[in-house]
Amino acid sequence: MDEPLFTIPLWADLTAVGLGGVQGALFASGFQGQRRLDLLGVTIIGIVVGMGGGLIRDLLLDTTLATLQSNWYLLTAVAASLIGMLLAGVFHRLNRLIVGLDALVIGLFGAFGTSKALALGLPPVPAVFIGVCAAVGGGILRDIIMGLPVAIMHVGSLYAVAAGAGCVVLAVLHVFGVDLVPSAIAGILVAFVIRLLAVIFDVSLPEQRMLHRRKVAVETAAIPIVKPPR
Amino acid sequence: MDEPLFTIPLWADLTAVGLGGVQGALFASGFQGQRRLDLLGVTIIGIVVGMGGGLIRDLLLDTTLATLQSNWYLLTAVAASLIGMLLAGVFHRLNRLIVGLDALVIGLFGAFGTSKALALGLPPVPAVFIGVCAAVGGGILRDIIMGLPVAIMHVGSLYAVAAGAGCVVLAVLHVFGVDLVPSAIAGILVAFVIRLLAVIFDVSLPEQRMLHRRKVAVETAAIPIVKPPR
Amino acid sequence: MDEPLFTIPLWADLTAVGLGGVQGALFASGFQGQRRLDLLGVTIIGIVVGMGGGLIRDLLLDTTLATLQSNWYLLTAVAASLIGMLLAGVFHRLNRLIVGLDALVIGLFGAFGTSKALALGLPPVPAVFIGVCAAVGGGILRDIIMGLPVAIMHVGSLYAVAAGAGCVVLAVLHVFGVDLVPSAIAGILVAFVIRLLAVIFDVSLPEQRMLHRRKVAVETAAIPIVKPPR
Repeated sequence: MDEPLFTIPLWADLTAVGLGGVQGALFASGFQGQRRLDLLGVTIIGIVVGMGGGLIRDLLLDTTLATLQSNWYLLTAVAASLIGMLLAGVFHRLNRLIVGLDALVIGLFGAFGTSKALALGLPPVPAVFIGVCAAVGGGILRDIIMGLPVAIMHVGSLYAVAAGAGCVVLAVLHVFGVDLVPSAIAGILVAFVIRLLAVIFDVSLPEQRMLHRRKVAVETAAIPIVKPPR
Repeated sequence: MDEPLFTIPLWADLTAVGLGGVQGALFASGFQGQRRLDLLGVTIIGIVVGMGGGLIRDLLLDTTLATLQSNWYLLTAVAASLIGMLLAGVFHRLNRLIVGLDALVIGLFGAFGTSKALALGLPPVPAVFIGVCAAVGGGILRDIIMGLPVAIMHVGSLYAVAAGAGCVVLAVLHVFGVDLVPSAIAGILVAFVIRLLAVIFDVSLPEQRMLHRRKVAVETAAIPIVKPPR
Repeated sequence: MDEPLFTIPLWADLTAVGLGGVQGALFASGFQGQRRLDLLGVTIIGIVVGMGGGLIRDLLLDTTLATLQSNWYLLTAVAASLIGMLLAGVFHRLNRLIVGLDALVIGLFGAFGTSKALALGLPPVPAVFIGVCAAVGGGILRDIIMGLPVAIMHVGSLYAVAAGAGCVVLAVLHVFGVDLVPSAIAGILVAFVIRLLAVIFDVSLPEQRMLHRRKVAVETAAIPIVKPPR
């Protein structure tokens, strides 16, 4: 009811929710031992990762929560979680798929968050902030609910930086008069490419590299392996 | 200001807040050793469990937070926390009382969440989602603030399933034209009975049973015993 | 758009955000070993502590999030985080500065939260609740994201009590007809003084003193030292 000028098309929004749900379920399925989750737990994580970004975005915008105005979002997230579980059963080496999907999802959620904020008239700096929160918020909720260290604070792969760069590109293009749709596509691409390159070439901030040797234990704790419960 | 058609009666809402507060304080009082909470900590958990469900419901509905529009909610939650502490001092075996109250509270919060969402015009699937979030949200906040594993992800007793079943019954009856009040009563009963039966007969999802043997340590960590801080 | 009667002046709001950001960055910079955060992590914590209180306040009030309506809040929080990191490098003994800033920040956020709630017409009890949530909410988010025990549940120094006392003083003065500005100043002073006296004289609730001996490990875990990841 607040956004007459601009609405994210339902298919685009559902695509992001679906990819997020698949990615979340793949991630959650990877745990073994005491951290292993049952079918219900994996589905909860799929829903959290698929829908968390959109919910956080609309809460911060103080607008109607689009994710809850139609049956399709939840149905998509649940179906995506089941697909994620199936894929996890089929493929043995999942890390590449998880990382690729993740790069796409943070790009999509970041772009949707920033463009919706700009369309509602927010200034560019908070619009970028909302995009970053939408991009990384689902993952933060996932880590908190699963009792893992919050990945964004510890994993040295320019995670939040990739999301932020995509949102900044979008906002800057918009300030210079470019339409929201091409700006958003550019932003998604930038976030996706930075995140993938960071993982492929193991790029990280200088200080993070220094820290890396000291805290391998922390980082591996964020990757699906057997860990005792906290 | 958004709900002209339907308002949860104050006495019903306060009953849920009060029972939640008693249950939260009973739970929080049970810890010994390094996890032991002082009077203030127990009251905070009572408030979180008593009021968390209603706050989450209204945040997701993007409507005025009913729980903060009157003095009574907080006063009820605080009084209930004190009653919970007293009960914890009187009774030695609290688990039955905690489980029974818990079953009632998830039924009440689930039904209130789903019926308010339906009354505001949301489709049935997100209405059920909001009910489940309201039912289990207070407990999730409690576990996060206390630094415990989030119970809903690990305890194999159909916890979220019970809440979900109650909300689904309510929504389906409403779709078939039954009034909200009898639908809500049916939903509360279904959630309450499923949750109690699950605990009494130790029913769990098949995979959860298999997991159970492996992670007894995780589950007992969610029950008040001496545990080192994380 | 909802508060025609009363708006917190921008300079006052930005002061609170800036002090919160400095305090958060100082706190986050203090960790060594595996919990050590890089530049990005420290900035995230600075933003969370500086902006968390205002965001929680406006979410609970279901009003436009003031913190996101102007570029200045985020720019202030980021600049404050950098200042905090510089100070952390310059000073060796930071605890006094952290505690003093913290006492001021909980006073400011508490007073802003309670007075905005009263100005929007909320009854005094939930207005105090919102003030306390705004005062301690940023710190709770900080601890959850950093994987630390939530300080308010474990640190025995009348932390939440100080915030609550300031908000109660403000609300009571307002009920007796005193203007919001002098009431807020009185509330800020009360919270600040109680918190500082509690730290200086090591005052705590009676039960907390008893608990203190048993859980020194828990409390020190909340202070920057080397701790294994959870």
